[in-house]
Amino acid sequence: MNLEDIIALDKADPLAHKRQEFELPANTIYLDGNSLGALPKAVKTTVAEVVTQQWGEDLIKSWNSHNWIDLPIKVGEKIAPLIGADSGQVICCDSISVNLFKLLSGALKLNYGRKVVLSTSDNFPTDLYMVQGLSELLGPELCALQLVAEQNIEQSLNESVAVLLLTQVNFRSGNLLDMQRLTKLAHDKGILVIWDLAHSAGAVPVELDKCDVDFAVGCGYKYLNGGPGAPAFLYVASRHQAAVKQPLSGWMGHAAPFAFDPKYQPSASINQFQSGTPSVIAMSALDAALDVWQDVDMLQLRDKSLALADVFIRLVNGQDCLSELQLCSPDKAAQRGSQLAYSHDDAFAICQALIEKGVVADFRAPNILRFGFTPLYTSFEDVWKAVATLATIVETELFKEQGFNVPLKVT
Amino acid sequence: MNLEDIIALDKADPLAHKRQEFELPANTIYLDGNSLGALPKAVKTTVAEVVTQQWGEDLIKSWNSHNWIDLPIKVGEKIAPLIGADSGQVICCDSISVNLFKLLSGALKLNYGRKVVLSTSDNFPTDLYMVQGLSELLGPELCALQLVAEQNIEQSLNESVAVLLLTQVNFRSGNLLDMQRLTKLAHDKGILVIWDLAHSAGAVPVELDKCDVDFAVGCGYKYLNGGPGAPAFLYVASRHQAAVKQPLSGWMGHAAPFAFDPKYQPSASINQFQSGTPSVIAMSALDAALDVWQDVDMLQLRDKSLALADVFIRLVNGQDCLSELQLCSPDKAAQRGSQLAYSHDDAFAICQALIEKGVVADFRAPNILRFGFTPLYTSFEDVWKAVATLATIVETELFKEQGFNVPLKVT
Repeated sequence: MNLEDIIALDKADPLAHKRQEFELPANTIYLDGNSLGALPKAVKTTVAEVVTQQWGEDLIKSWNSHNWIDLPIKVGEKIAPLIGADSGQVICCDSISVNLFKLLSGALKLNYGRKVVLSTSDNFPTDLYMVQGLSELLGPELCALQLVAEQNIEQSLNESVAVLLLTQVNFRSGNLLDMQRLTKLAHDKGILVIWDLAHSAGAVPVELDKCDVDFAVGCGYKYLNGGPGAPAFLYVASRHQAAVKQPLSGWMGHAAPFAFDPKYQPSASINQFQSGTPSVIAMSALDAALDVWQDVDMLQLRDKSLALADVFIRLVNGQDCLSELQLCSPDKAAQRGSQLAYSHDDAFAICQALIEKGVVADFRAPNILRFGFTPLYTSFEDVWKAVATLATIVETELFKEQGFNVPLKVT
Repeated sequence: MNLEDIIALDKADPLAHKRQEFELPANTIYLDGNSLGALPKAVKTTVAEVVTQQWGEDLIKSWNSHNWIDLPIKVGEKIAPLIGADSGQVICCDSISVNLFKLLSGALKLNYGRKVVLSTSDNFPTDLYMVQGLSELLGPELCALQLVAEQNIEQSLNESVAVLLLTQVNFRSGNLLDMQRLTKLAHDKGILVIWDLAHSAGAVPVELDKCDVDFAVGCGYKYLNGGPGAPAFLYVASRHQAAVKQPLSGWMGHAAPFAFDPKYQPSASINQFQSGTPSVIAMSALDAALDVWQDVDMLQLRDKSLALADVFIRLVNGQDCLSELQLCSPDKAAQRGSQLAYSHDDAFAICQALIEKGVVADFRAPNILRFGFTPLYTSFEDVWKAVATLATIVETELFKEQGFNVPLKVT
C-alpha cells in the first residue's frame, strides 16, 4: 500500500466534500474527534448570531421570537434520525450523567421489585458513578450495582436484574456491543435496557427503534461536534413515556411551565425529561453542528470509518518498528466502533511526541493509545501521515533517541 | 420631580459608567434584566475566542492549555464575593433545578430522622417541583414538602423540619426575606437552610458566610448577565463539605476523574458537587460577564437599585391615570429586592403595549406587571421614559382607545 493507493482512496471517497464544512487547524492531523469533535464552520456564525442578535438585541423576547423554548425538542429531533429513532422520543438536555440519573431512577421504578443494575466493569466510569450515587440515595435494597466483564453480560441476565446499562462502544477498546441481541436477551428476562451512545452516535449506524431499546443517553460533543461540554441527549421509547417518571422534575419538564403552578405536573411528551432552563448558547452550537449531518448516509459513514481503521491497521502492520504496538480493539471490523486502541509500554511518551508533531491522539492509562476516526473530516492521507509520524517517533525517539528532527519516512 | 431632577440623578450616579460595558439595543428601555440580563460587550469577544481559537484551533488540548477543566471553580470563585462567600465554597455547574436536587438530597441525609422540607407556597415553582421529585423518589416517609405563606415561615419552624428552602427575593413580588434572622431561627431548631439566590445574586448584597448559611443555589442568567440559560451555581459552607454527599455523582465530581476508576470517590473540595462535563462555551460566557463586577461596590449597587425603584414609584404616584396600578411589592424599600410588581386588571394588555413601544417589562398571571432594575445598565432617565410610556398607554389606549400614535407626555 503506497501513497498513490491512499490518494486514490481519498479521490473515491463520497464523503470527502464534508471536510470543507469544518474548521481544521493547519498542520494538524486530528484523531481525537472521539473525545472532542472539530468545529463546524456553521457553528461560528450561529453562535455569533445567537449572542449578538438574539441575546444582545432581542433579549427576553427571543424565548418566543427565536423559539429558544423549543430548542431542546428541535435539537432532539435532529439527533433522532442519526440513532434510528422516530419523532417524539429524543430530547437535548443536561449532561449524560444527569440524564442517566433520570432514566435509571425511572427504569428502576418501572421494574419495581428488582434492584440490580447490571453493567460492565469497563463501562465509562461516570455511568457507574451515577448508579452508585442512586444506590447510596435509595439504599442497596432498592438499587444495587453489579459489574461483569463484557464477555459475561449474556450469562448474567436473570430475573433479579432490573436494568441493563451498557455503553454501545467501549470508550477504551472501541469494542461494539450487539445492541439488538443484548436488548432482546434482556427483554426475555424482563430487564429494561439503557444504552449509552457516547461513542456511537455519529460514529456507527444506531437503530434504537428497530432494536426495541427502552432508553438511551448520548453525547453532543464527540462525533456530533457540538463543542466542548455540549448538552447531551436522551431517548425514551414512546411506549414508556406515559408510565415512566423521572425525579429531576424541574419547571421545563412541566406540562405548563409558565402557569407557575406550585404542583408539578409532567408534560405528556418527551419534554417531561427536561429539568432546568437549557443553555441556549451551547444548545444553539449543537443545533448548528447537526446540520452537517443532513445529507450524510450513515451506511456510507460506516464504510469510510471501517476503511480508515483498516488502512491504519495495515500501515501499522507494514512497519517493522511498530511491531510492539498491540491492537486492543477487536480484530473483526464489524465488532468495532470508530476508534482503535493500541497498547505499548511507552504509550504515554509516544502520545506526547505525536501531539508535539501535530498528530492528535490520546492516551488512556496505563498503556493505551487511542486513535479516533471521524469520517466527516478525516482523510485517508491523514491516516497515512499519522502512521508515518508514529513510525518516525518510535524509530528515532524511543529506540535511537535521536531527537525530533528526523524527516518523516513516508509522506 | 421633573426631567431636570432625573438628569441630575444620572449625573451623580457613581455606577453610570458601567452602562458602556453592555450592548443595549437602540430605542429600548430594558426593565427585564431580572429575567434575562443584558449582553456584556466582553462576552461577545470571549465567546468568539473560545469557539474559534480554543475549540476550533486548539481542540482537545484546551482542557489543559486553556484550563477548561478548572472553569467551574474559576467561575465559582468570581461569584463568591458577590454573595459574601469565602473561597472554596462556590462552584458553577448545571441548572438551579439540578443543583437543588443535589443539595436537598445531601441536606436530608445530614438531617436524617427528619423528613419535612419547609418552603413557601409562592416560591419559584421549580424549587417546589424538585422537592416533589425527590419526595416521589424517596417516599413521603423520607421527604415531605410542607408549604406555608411567607409571613408564616417563622411560626412553622420546629423539630420536624429537616430543611428550610427559601428564595431570598420573591420572583413575583420582589419581597426580600431576612436571611440572617431566618437562618438563625432555623438553626435554633436544628434545621438546615438552603437559600435560592436567583433574584438576589447581583441584585442585592448577599452575606452567606456572615448569615451562617448552610447551602445556596443561584442563577447565572439574570443579574449576573451570563446569557440565556447560563450555568447556575451552588454554595456549600465549608463546615459541611466533608459530611454532605450528593447523589448526582458524575465523573467531574470524582477525586481523580482521569484515573477512570470504576468506584466513585468524591473530591474533597467543592468540586464534588459537579456532575457531568460542563458546557465550556456557556460557562466561558458567564466567566466573561462576571468581569463586569470586578469594580462594583455592592452597597453602591443597592443604593442605586433602591433609588431607581423609588423614582419609579414616585413617578407612578404622580400620574393620575396610573392610580389603578397597585404596588404588590413591599412598601418599605429595605424589604424589596431589585424589582417592582404592580397589579392591574389590564396588566397583560399594558405589558404588550409597553413592549411594542420599546419598554420591556414582563407579565405574570393573573394580573401582575414586573419591572426589574439592573443598576449596572439602567439609568434614571430610563425609568422616567418607562413611566411616561406607561402613562401614555394607559391614558390613550386603555381609556381613550385612540391607538398607538400619541406622543409621549413626558420625555
